[in-house]
Amino acid sequence: MITKRVPSETIGRLFRYFRSLSCLLRKGEEIVSSKTLAEVCHIKPATVRKDLSYFGEFGTRGVGYDAASLINKIKKIIKLDKKINVALVGIGNIGRALLKHSTFELEGFKIVMAFDNSPSKIGDTVGNVMIEDAANIRERIESSGIHLVILAVPDYATSKVANVLQLAGAKSILSFSPCGLSMPADIQVTCIDLSVEMARLVYNSCVDYREKV
Amino acid sequence: MITKRVPSETIGRLFRYFRSLSCLLRKGEEIVSSKTLAEVCHIKPATVRKDLSYFGEFGTRGVGYDAASLINKIKKIIKLDKKINVALVGIGNIGRALLKHSTFELEGFKIVMAFDNSPSKIGDTVGNVMIEDAANIRERIESSGIHLVILAVPDYATSKVANVLQLAGAKSILSFSPCGLSMPADIQVTCIDLSVEMARLVYNSCVDYREKV
Repeated sequence: MITKRVPSETIGRLFRYFRSLSCLLRKGEEIVSSKTLAEVCHIKPATVRKDLSYFGEFGTRGVGYDAASLINKIKKIIKLDKKINVALVGIGNIGRALLKHSTFELEGFKIVMAFDNSPSKIGDTVGNVMIEDAANIRERIESSGIHLVILAVPDYATSKVANVLQLAGAKSILSFSPCGLSMPADIQVTCIDLSVEMARLVYNSCVDYREKV
Repeated sequence: MITKRVPSETIGRLFRYFRSLSCLLRKGEEIVSSKTLAEVCHIKPATVRKDLSYFGEFGTRGVGYDAASLINKIKKIIKLDKKINVALVGIGNIGRALLKHSTFELEGFKIVMAFDNSPSKIGDTVGNVMIEDAANIRERIESSGIHLVILAVPDYATSKVANVLQLAGAKSILSFSPCGLSMPADIQVTCIDLSVEMARLVYNSCVDYREKV
C-alpha cells in the first residue's frame, strides 16, 4: 500500500521502472540489477535502490531484482494490476495506428470501443474493434463504466467531444489534439503534442547549456 | 535574444504559448488577452504577463496581444523561425500516421525523408514522401544535414538505428519506442510512451490527492 511517506517523485519514477522492466523482461532479462535499471532509466543506481526500498523491495545483493516479481509489485502500487479498458474517439490516421498498436495489451490496456462520426468508417473493424457511431458515445461509455478515453479527433471537435465524455463519466483523457482542453478539475487530461516535443528538442540541441539554466 | 535572466520555466511555457496561440489564431482569434492565453494553458494570467515581459512584449492594456506577431516573436526565441526538416525511421502504423499528419508543416516541421527496411515498403510514397531503404540512413541523413529524427521502429531495432543516427550526426531523437535509449549526452532524446501516460492518468484519477503529495 502507498503511504504518505512515499515522495511523488518516486511514484513518477515507478512508471519508468515498470516500463523499463517490462522491456528488459521481454528481451529475456529475468534478473535486473539496480545498475541496469538505472542505466535504462537515465538515473542513479542509488535512486533506484532508495525508491524500491519504500516498498520493501531490496533485491538480492550482488545479483539484482527478479524482474517479473518486481513488475507485479509496482503494478499493484501504480494501480495497474487489473486490465484497464479504454475507449478511443476519432479513427483518423493516429486512431487507426493506435487500434493496431499491439503492445498496449501487454501493458495492461485494451481498447475495447472505438467511435467516429464518419458514415464511411462506422461499422468497419480495425484491429478487432468495430467502429461505432460517435452519436452513441455517451450512452455506450456510461453503461460500460469505462473511465479512460483516448481522444484523436480534429482540433475543432475536441471540446465538443470532451464535453460528451464528461457527461459520460470519463475520468481521464489522453488527447492527441494540440489545442488545450478546458476540463473540470476532476477530469485528468494529458495532451500528446508532438510538435511541442520536437520544438523542445530543437531548442535544447541548439542552445548552449548555460543559456538554459 | 535570450539572456541568462530568463528562467528555464519561462522557456518551457513559451512552447505552450506558441502552440496555444497558433490554435487560437487558426480559430480566428487575432487578438488574445493574457486571461485567454492563461486559461487555455492552465496557468495564471500574471504568469503569462510576466513571462512575456521578459521579451518586451506587453500587449495593449485592456485589449490583448496581437497573436500573429507574438507567435513570430516566440518562434524566434525558441528557434522555430526557420522550417525544420525531419527524417522519419520506421514506417509501421505510427510512422504512416505521422507521414499523413497534416499539421506538422503548419507548425514549422517537415518530414522530408522516410526510411524502412522492408522491401515491400521501400519505394512506396506516403504523404508525398518516398520511403527509402534503411541501409542508406547514415549517408542520406549525413549529406542532408538533418538534425532531428523521429524513430518509430520496433523495440528490438531501436538501439541499432539510434547508433546509426548518432554516426549520421543526428542531434535529437523523438522516439516512439518505449524501451529507453542509451545515447551520448550530446544527443537529446524524448520518448513518447503512451502506456506510461495512460498509467499515470489512471493512477492520478484513482488516487486521492492527499496520497499523491
